[in-house]
Amino acid sequence: MASEELSNKRILLKSYVTGFPSEDDMILTSATVPAKLPPGSTALLLKNLFLSCDPYMRSRMSKPVATSYRASYEPGSVIVGYGVSKVIDSGNPDFKVGDLVWGITGWEEYTVVESPQGLSKIKYTDIPLSYYTGILGMPGLTAYVGFNHICSPKTGETVYVSAASGAVGQLVGQFAKLLGCYVVGSAGSKEKVDLLKNKLGFDDAFNYKEEKDLDAALKRCFPDGIDIYFENVGGKMLDAVLLNMKVYGRIAVCGLISQYNLTQKEGIYNIMAILQKRLRIQGFIEPDHKHLYPEFLETIIGYIREGKVTYVEDIVEGIEKAPLALVGLFTGQNVGKQVVLVAHE
Amino acid sequence: MASEELSNKRILLKSYVTGFPSEDDMILTSATVPAKLPPGSTALLLKNLFLSCDPYMRSRMSKPVATSYRASYEPGSVIVGYGVSKVIDSGNPDFKVGDLVWGITGWEEYTVVESPQGLSKIKYTDIPLSYYTGILGMPGLTAYVGFNHICSPKTGETVYVSAASGAVGQLVGQFAKLLGCYVVGSAGSKEKVDLLKNKLGFDDAFNYKEEKDLDAALKRCFPDGIDIYFENVGGKMLDAVLLNMKVYGRIAVCGLISQYNLTQKEGIYNIMAILQKRLRIQGFIEPDHKHLYPEFLETIIGYIREGKVTYVEDIVEGIEKAPLALVGLFTGQNVGKQVVLVAHE
Repeated sequence: MASEELSNKRILLKSYVTGFPSEDDMILTSATVPAKLPPGSTALLLKNLFLSCDPYMRSRMSKPVATSYRASYEPGSVIVGYGVSKVIDSGNPDFKVGDLVWGITGWEEYTVVESPQGLSKIKYTDIPLSYYTGILGMPGLTAYVGFNHICSPKTGETVYVSAASGAVGQLVGQFAKLLGCYVVGSAGSKEKVDLLKNKLGFDDAFNYKEEKDLDAALKRCFPDGIDIYFENVGGKMLDAVLLNMKVYGRIAVCGLISQYNLTQKEGIYNIMAILQKRLRIQGFIEPDHKHLYPEFLETIIGYIREGKVTYVEDIVEGIEKAPLALVGLFTGQNVGKQVVLVAHE
Repeated sequence: MASEELSNKRILLKSYVTGFPSEDDMILTSATVPAKLPPGSTALLLKNLFLSCDPYMRSRMSKPVATSYRASYEPGSVIVGYGVSKVIDSGNPDFKVGDLVWGITGWEEYTVVESPQGLSKIKYTDIPLSYYTGILGMPGLTAYVGFNHICSPKTGETVYVSAASGAVGQLVGQFAKLLGCYVVGSAGSKEKVDLLKNKLGFDDAFNYKEEKDLDAALKRCFPDGIDIYFENVGGKMLDAVLLNMKVYGRIAVCGLISQYNLTQKEGIYNIMAILQKRLRIQGFIEPDHKHLYPEFLETIIGYIREGKVTYVEDIVEGIEKAPLALVGLFTGQNVGKQVVLVAHE
């Protein structure tokens, strides 16, 4: 029995990435993993079902810098990220074979996890398990904390969301609508704009790639200005937004995806607006707010069951497709939350 | 009696200013004002004692733009600003002849104020009256609100103040020291740096004009990073500070004096730090916080009487010198709060 082995396809980082990542920055390898943990092990052996592609992963592909809030991946080592997995062997009394978990796992078919610190048992299984990489996982809590806590929203306020059809943005817009805000989103294709307007309930939406003048686009959508900007992109969009914020406006900085692959970042010129309009700009990351997950989970499960929120996923099948799916985030190939289906339960 | 007139030197704005203001952008004129208000007037006739030169006045010298929070001056009209005045005639039952007031007045020897809304009676006269343009006036409340309310400071935190010997900065540093923070200031001359270190109690200070690399200067002064940045200048300094903020750092944007005279503002490139370090950047202006003035006044009067704070003023004598004093703010000619003594009581 101890000699039985499972074939284990894995995705490794080839070397540190500069500029835009490409599929070639990762390597697909074939390895094996013992089908059982060795006697006395306290680890978990996971069968990975879904892997999550998230923009923050780009920073982990770069050479380590002091300002990173997450460690870089090691070249030659397996990519690590959020996923949904099934416990197929356990040396930990808190987990048993058959348990479904979500959290930090490897980009491979099977992962041995020494410490289950980054894993949570899945409480509700009556919704798609892939949701634990999105609406019920890190992106969901990000949207919840970012909008409800960081943005200090009030009913009737105007809300602008960039990258609005993405894993986080689509939820921010729906949370804002549930509160009675006026919500406009931007995205990078007609398909995504249609999704925002027709499926996700945004009041309005525009394709930023088709707008020559972002300032004019924002003035068209928000003739009286923006109370809340949920920032996912940065760069020229942020600069245009600053010109269109209302007095006492708030900007939650959740992501700056337009800047992640630039070796020389774009300048922001309209800083005077922060003073003139008494803006509050606040950066946040989800790991700082994990303690709110239980509160969030009960809220969002209720919303899902009552049909108050919906969630758009872009699921590719096969771990081989994970590298292309990940790099596609940075050119907007995904429509909705990008997920990789590795195996059926 | 009604025909008696007072000679009234006045400073008018010549025309809207672009770029750095110069003395020539203002005109000194001689006019007269009746020595008594007409019968039935409800106005106040003020004899102006001190006039205040403040950086925000630069924006009022520009052509009006929608984003201004204060109206532009009218070319050909008298400059308006904070000052200390004596009531020499009154048609308002709340003010009597001989009352000392501070607040909004004209840049002239005598001003007729139709509505006393912008004026407050001076409560304490055992300290220099000029202090009501500074430590006891708008700059004082600005420093108090900006540091204690906007920056959310805690004992032991590291605080950096730019334009640190100015009207606001010198108080921010002293408030931070009173709370037990480690405080470093920057200014633009050896004289000012000496003042910060030897008179105003800053832990350290540097002359930004002598630093080739602002990032390196900040790393030298704050090897473990900055918790709080009190922003008075903007531009390259803000960009360097972003690289040196600690996680959860706060930046109160009080002024951006390096940018006021630029037709093309400088870009800020290190925006990623807002996300990576979860920074809070908040703009504020004193008029939004007027309700805190009574609380502030009692606190600061106590500090002054107990010798807990000191205040450095740069007083020029004669209204003729007001234009040069005002434009000198933008090249750092003033050492401490810039005041113009117009007349003795």
